[in-house]
Amino acid sequence: MASEVAEEWAQGTFKLNPNDEDIHTANERRLKELIGETAGKLHTGRSRNDQVVTDLRLWMRQNCSMLSALLCELIRTMVDRAEAERDVLFPGYTHLQRAQPIRWSHWILSHAVALTRDSERLLEVRKRINVLPLGSGAIAGNPLGVDRELLRAELDFGAITLNSMDATSERDFVAEFLFWASLCMTHLSRMAEDLILYGTKEFSFVQLSDAYSTGSSLMPQKKNPDSLELIRSKAGRVFGRCAGLLMTLKGLPSTYNKDLQEDKEAVFEVSDTMSAVLQVATGVISTLQIHRENMGRALSPDMLATDLAYYLVRKGMPFRQAHEASGKAVFMAETKGVALNQLSLQELQTISPLFSGDVSHVWDYGHSVEQYEALGGTARSSVDWQIGQLRALLRAQQTESPPHASPK
Amino acid sequence: MASEVAEEWAQGTFKLNPNDEDIHTANERRLKELIGETAGKLHTGRSRNDQVVTDLRLWMRQNCSMLSALLCELIRTMVDRAEAERDVLFPGYTHLQRAQPIRWSHWILSHAVALTRDSERLLEVRKRINVLPLGSGAIAGNPLGVDRELLRAELDFGAITLNSMDATSERDFVAEFLFWASLCMTHLSRMAEDLILYGTKEFSFVQLSDAYSTGSSLMPQKKNPDSLELIRSKAGRVFGRCAGLLMTLKGLPSTYNKDLQEDKEAVFEVSDTMSAVLQVATGVISTLQIHRENMGRALSPDMLATDLAYYLVRKGMPFRQAHEASGKAVFMAETKGVALNQLSLQELQTISPLFSGDVSHVWDYGHSVEQYEALGGTARSSVDWQIGQLRALLRAQQTESPPHASPK
Amino acid sequence: MASEVAEEWAQGTFKLNPNDEDIHTANERRLKELIGETAGKLHTGRSRNDQVVTDLRLWMRQNCSMLSALLCELIRTMVDRAEAERDVLFPGYTHLQRAQPIRWSHWILSHAVALTRDSERLLEVRKRINVLPLGSGAIAGNPLGVDRELLRAELDFGAITLNSMDATSERDFVAEFLFWASLCMTHLSRMAEDLILYGTKEFSFVQLSDAYSTGSSLMPQKKNPDSLELIRSKAGRVFGRCAGLLMTLKGLPSTYNKDLQEDKEAVFEVSDTMSAVLQVATGVISTLQIHRENMGRALSPDMLATDLAYYLVRKGMPFRQAHEASGKAVFMAETKGVALNQLSLQELQTISPLFSGDVSHVWDYGHSVEQYEALGGTARSSVDWQIGQLRALLRAQQTESPPHASPK
Amino acid sequence: MASEVAEEWAQGTFKLNPNDEDIHTANERRLKELIGETAGKLHTGRSRNDQVVTDLRLWMRQNCSMLSALLCELIRTMVDRAEAERDVLFPGYTHLQRAQPIRWSHWILSHAVALTRDSERLLEVRKRINVLPLGSGAIAGNPLGVDRELLRAELDFGAITLNSMDATSERDFVAEFLFWASLCMTHLSRMAEDLILYGTKEFSFVQLSDAYSTGSSLMPQKKNPDSLELIRSKAGRVFGRCAGLLMTLKGLPSTYNKDLQEDKEAVFEVSDTMSAVLQVATGVISTLQIHRENMGRALSPDMLATDLAYYLVRKGMPFRQAHEASGKAVFMAETKGVALNQLSLQELQTISPLFSGDVSHVWDYGHSVEQYEALGGTARSSVDWQIGQLRALLRAQQTESPPHASPK
Repeated sequence: MASEVAEEWAQGTFKLNPNDEDIHTANERRLKELIGETAGKLHTGRSRNDQVVTDLRLWMRQNCSMLSALLCELIRTMVDRAEAERDVLFPGYTHLQRAQPIRWSHWILSHAVALTRDSERLLEVRKRINVLPLGSGAIAGNPLGVDRELLRAELDFGAITLNSMDATSERDFVAEFLFWASLCMTHLSRMAEDLILYGTKEFSFVQLSDAYSTGSSLMPQKKNPDSLELIRSKAGRVFGRCAGLLMTLKGLPSTYNKDLQEDKEAVFEVSDTMSAVLQVATGVISTLQIHRENMGRALSPDMLATDLAYYLVRKGMPFRQAHEASGKAVFMAETKGVALNQLSLQELQTISPLFSGDVSHVWDYGHSVEQYEALGGTARSSVDWQIGQLRALLRAQQTESPPHASPK
Repeated sequence: MASEVAEEWAQGTFKLNPNDEDIHTANERRLKELIGETAGKLHTGRSRNDQVVTDLRLWMRQNCSMLSALLCELIRTMVDRAEAERDVLFPGYTHLQRAQPIRWSHWILSHAVALTRDSERLLEVRKRINVLPLGSGAIAGNPLGVDRELLRAELDFGAITLNSMDATSERDFVAEFLFWASLCMTHLSRMAEDLILYGTKEFSFVQLSDAYSTGSSLMPQKKNPDSLELIRSKAGRVFGRCAGLLMTLKGLPSTYNKDLQEDKEAVFEVSDTMSAVLQVATGVISTLQIHRENMGRALSPDMLATDLAYYLVRKGMPFRQAHEASGKAVFMAETKGVALNQLSLQELQTISPLFSGDVSHVWDYGHSVEQYEALGGTARSSVDWQIGQLRALLRAQQTESPPHASPK
Repeated sequence: MASEVAEEWAQGTFKLNPNDEDIHTANERRLKELIGETAGKLHTGRSRNDQVVTDLRLWMRQNCSMLSALLCELIRTMVDRAEAERDVLFPGYTHLQRAQPIRWSHWILSHAVALTRDSERLLEVRKRINVLPLGSGAIAGNPLGVDRELLRAELDFGAITLNSMDATSERDFVAEFLFWASLCMTHLSRMAEDLILYGTKEFSFVQLSDAYSTGSSLMPQKKNPDSLELIRSKAGRVFGRCAGLLMTLKGLPSTYNKDLQEDKEAVFEVSDTMSAVLQVATGVISTLQIHRENMGRALSPDMLATDLAYYLVRKGMPFRQAHEASGKAVFMAETKGVALNQLSLQELQTISPLFSGDVSHVWDYGHSVEQYEALGGTARSSVDWQIGQLRALLRAQQTESPPHASPK
Repeated sequence: MASEVAEEWAQGTFKLNPNDEDIHTANERRLKELIGETAGKLHTGRSRNDQVVTDLRLWMRQNCSMLSALLCELIRTMVDRAEAERDVLFPGYTHLQRAQPIRWSHWILSHAVALTRDSERLLEVRKRINVLPLGSGAIAGNPLGVDRELLRAELDFGAITLNSMDATSERDFVAEFLFWASLCMTHLSRMAEDLILYGTKEFSFVQLSDAYSTGSSLMPQKKNPDSLELIRSKAGRVFGRCAGLLMTLKGLPSTYNKDLQEDKEAVFEVSDTMSAVLQVATGVISTLQIHRENMGRALSPDMLATDLAYYLVRKGMPFRQAHEASGKAVFMAETKGVALNQLSLQELQTISPLFSGDVSHVWDYGHSVEQYEALGGTARSSVDWQIGQLRALLRAQQTESPPHASPK
């Protein structure tokens, strides 16, 4: 008969009654209509306090599995793209100033790697969601000898809560989820910021597909990166929910207080937002067009000044002196109004006698990036290593991936 | 010679020079004074960007071990106290209204259990702190073939970072630590709130020791729970730092930007606050006096209305009806102006014929709590089970506990 | 014809078309159906950027007037109650410890006075909402010589914005509104906290009416202060929206970015919450029952220790010494196990010869509160003065009260 | 003698005693050393609760005057610069996409106008700081008939607090100040973001002076905009303090609780930060170099598409059609691979017969900006109007400017 009630909900035929206080009493009332007074046994040894938090955990663990899948899909899309475009070079920036030539894939992977931490954290949060509070009653526990371990196994939870007072009133798992989302959004906001910049006329490195940009009501020539701006903006909203919940929790007295009711809207809104944002980000990344020539054109010899210093280091000069020598070369080129690679060997030798003919290799951008072979660097081998690491992580995640992805 | 410089720092004899740009250049300058130009090799293949984040991680992993130990000490103090005072009963509250009789130990354990989640989370955060970024350079990686796995082993890190751009600019581990502290403080703020209430004249359940309370400049008769108020208030400050960092991170472009410099003050202040708060909380708990008689006196028969319903459930009545019957008894007692347990058997039987002589057992508070035997409940066996679980967790933590607790 | 379109909206007969991009294009499309191509002139010299912010300001200024009226209603309810119950005494608390006898009205007024600052601030926020951005275009301004002062007068705004780039992208007025609400909610959360405490069995000073409390699904004897807990909890939610918006704004580049779209949901949700909370608070205050006898019974002679010190001050003793002497009396009474007012004159004189027969007046609670005659104190004259001040403020507010309370 | 103690503090010769509980007792103890027992009268009718909040208000009102002056100095610097560089044109951006040509001064003024709102708000906050709580005692008021209006006049406050319970425990003025700073920092973070972008190689519109930028430890060719990044980052820190205080206040019970002690560090840190940031911003703006040619070169005919539409509007075409026509021209130019202004009159006339020879005026950037003459637009007259408005505001502010700028 309980399954009949479930069926009514599924079919949308369940009729709410104005006297139903909440979902629990509505179900009991309907069951009573179907089977009589025995339905009154439904609430035995239960309290709304432990039921509502059990329901929320059931919902969230399924939702986390869904978000986990969306996040992996985004990472996979990024890794695929990184693999395909490994040979594209463009400027790496620090302080938004051109710093050194890097592979475009290295940039993509820098954001993908950040997201793998989110993925790892989500599994940890999910582990703490997947703990069963049922059998805690309102505060004191269950007086009818309910076998909580049996309930746990039936409902496929990972563990049971340890203390009935804590179980009904702690919302750590909600706070953790909201913070997980906030930190993940900070990552996405940074990636969005980069792409907005790279999509300006001034940078012209990338172009959003039409599906992810919109026109202007006043300026027919414009394409606005609305999708990226919305991703960036959601970081605020999501964090606001996290901040709100923590403020609500602060200083509350023990056990259940109605204040805790604020948890659900926060969870639902943040889940919806994360789901949408992850899908939009995947769409943006997979449809983005890149302008290789502009990327290449943006590289300039002064970005090789560090490499020039390393050239001297390899010849035996301590780094500090090499850095100074390279600085002198930069200054000399500026003074003469020429590019750094246009200084003659003679001119360079006035700075240090260690310069010789092989300095010409320094000016090759391809050669430059290939030097950064240490793990995690921008050399091709190192980028390939990163791709391998991420693919392995994705596979591992899929394996330990939680079993509650689809409704039972 | 590097050890000589270290010694100077340890002795406080290291002399800073106005031209030292930062700690890195100061060390290199001093080394140069001692060994000459070779000191200039110190910075080879390094950047302030990867050095500063390596330093912060070294500091934080040691600090986390210290905080972890303080947290375990607090939990242990609570568990010891819970074990010693297992036989004290007092009212359990929901919505700050007296609900059901519970063991005082059950209350203590409810807060201790919350703190074990903080303890578990701190280990997870520490795992992500304990990842080595050295060898990432400023952005592109290391071009001199440094063996990062060797560095990792030497510096005893758990893993190396995967991408040099991400490694120098991600501050997830800082944000996670600040959030860890914020959530832990919410727990402590709730415990403090409870104790402040229990220490009022009106409740009179507990009394702070003199070391943790202060007098009034105007009212000689007063003892103020300053220690608890400060604990409660720090939840705000700590969370403020977390909020501040996330806002700073939001929308930043890729890789290192000076904005990231905000991380250290936040970490130092929050670490100091947590260290102080955990120690004060341990002090408060270990020196707190409880007033058993007041606790007992605060129990009243109406708090057994739920048990009265369960009495009928055990006689076979569906819970919903039993709840109604118990409600009628409460109303009848109120109307007659007597306590619930002063209703005669005849009077109860007008409500339900299932009432018989054995209903008198219901009115025994000791008997009441003993019913809540399901795991996590307030029966003695269940409280003992909780104590066992927590002791096992503390032992397990000590075993996997991180090795960097004291400076090397 | 524009009025015909307005009429359709009012009647709910306006039909949206799947191709309508937004409300602006929908209106123009409908107008075109009614009057032909001339409708295409509607958007002349306008941009969605200045239109959307104009619309939001129109909505918010009306909404602020509504909230302002609800806030005044709450204050008025409190002042009325304070006036009616001026003669009820009860303990004033600091650090939640009984401190000195005060009038119940003094407590009510302490919260009402806080709310008058919210009322004042809301008018200031409204002043900055009531500034017209229309005529700013998308960024550069209006090229068709529109008379913005005329528009301002027509739409009844207080001023026009000064710079078109700022006008389309600043959301100060939104942030200010959200912060206004956050601070107001902190006030209400503190009042709610007090009332929750005063409504516990332990304090038993007040009782919520049935309409503002709810029963327990497990414990028939309980009445939970759900209304107050919800008020308290909303402080978190509202502040979360404020935090979210500020994070969204932080670091945004100049002028309109899609990120700004986050403003509206925040405003709508917070407005709805504030409206509900203010009305619930008014309902709670106006229907609250107080238990005068319990309030009186909670006063005890030790709360007069400060007055005892002042007694000596009036006899010429410096306050510091008087405070010490009073402290000695408290200690003597504790030692002897008697109430402070049961010390004999002889006993008091061993502490100071300044004590004489008139010390007996000190032990009269009514006499005690009457001493606090300085403005803002708890003496009857001073409480009356406060009531007078608040009534004058309410009258003043009504006068300068904004004219946009109802839709035009 | 009180002045002698003040002198000792001023000279730094005041000696603290380990037994001094706080600043109040230290002063009283010292006075006692100088004048004997009469010093014990110092605390008469006072409490630390009202003293500490009076002290904080005294400190803050002076500090606000200082910040107000620094803010005006920044605005003045911006207005001066806007006036001097009125004839420089560059691209205005929306969504970070080039939108329309604007005056560089128009951009400067857009940020200056935002700061005038901060300036206005600071005066309002200061008004609420400048209210005297002295005479409120610990909670009940003053029982010795102190004349609070006299105290107010003596200490030059604008008003007295209305209720003693509220007076000692409300921290609205602190929260308001922290929020004021947070909103002001959002403005500065947006200006900093713009300037960081404009200072990239890709934009190359501006160059920071050496005093406000720093070199790279690894890349000798780089100049990093550290000053701007620090300004941007401080928005997070400042807001974190605001968030922290509100969380601390939420749900506190009435009157003084030790939690309130968190207010001072927040105020001091935020004041210091604001003072530094405002001065750095003034320095950046006054020493910034602009690259006029790059700015001019960044303008392109497609940014005149809106003007092309307005050209048709002036010839009588409804805006919607004109916008479409202009869009067609943009598309035609793109298809033909020419700039928009290189379409021949014949080609344009295929789009609309309204195009005639005078369309050539549209392609003049100077002519373009001059069209935006409505108040607040980017035409020269309108920019001059803005400058006049801001100068008037600065003068007005100076006049009503608060009298407590320097210590008395």
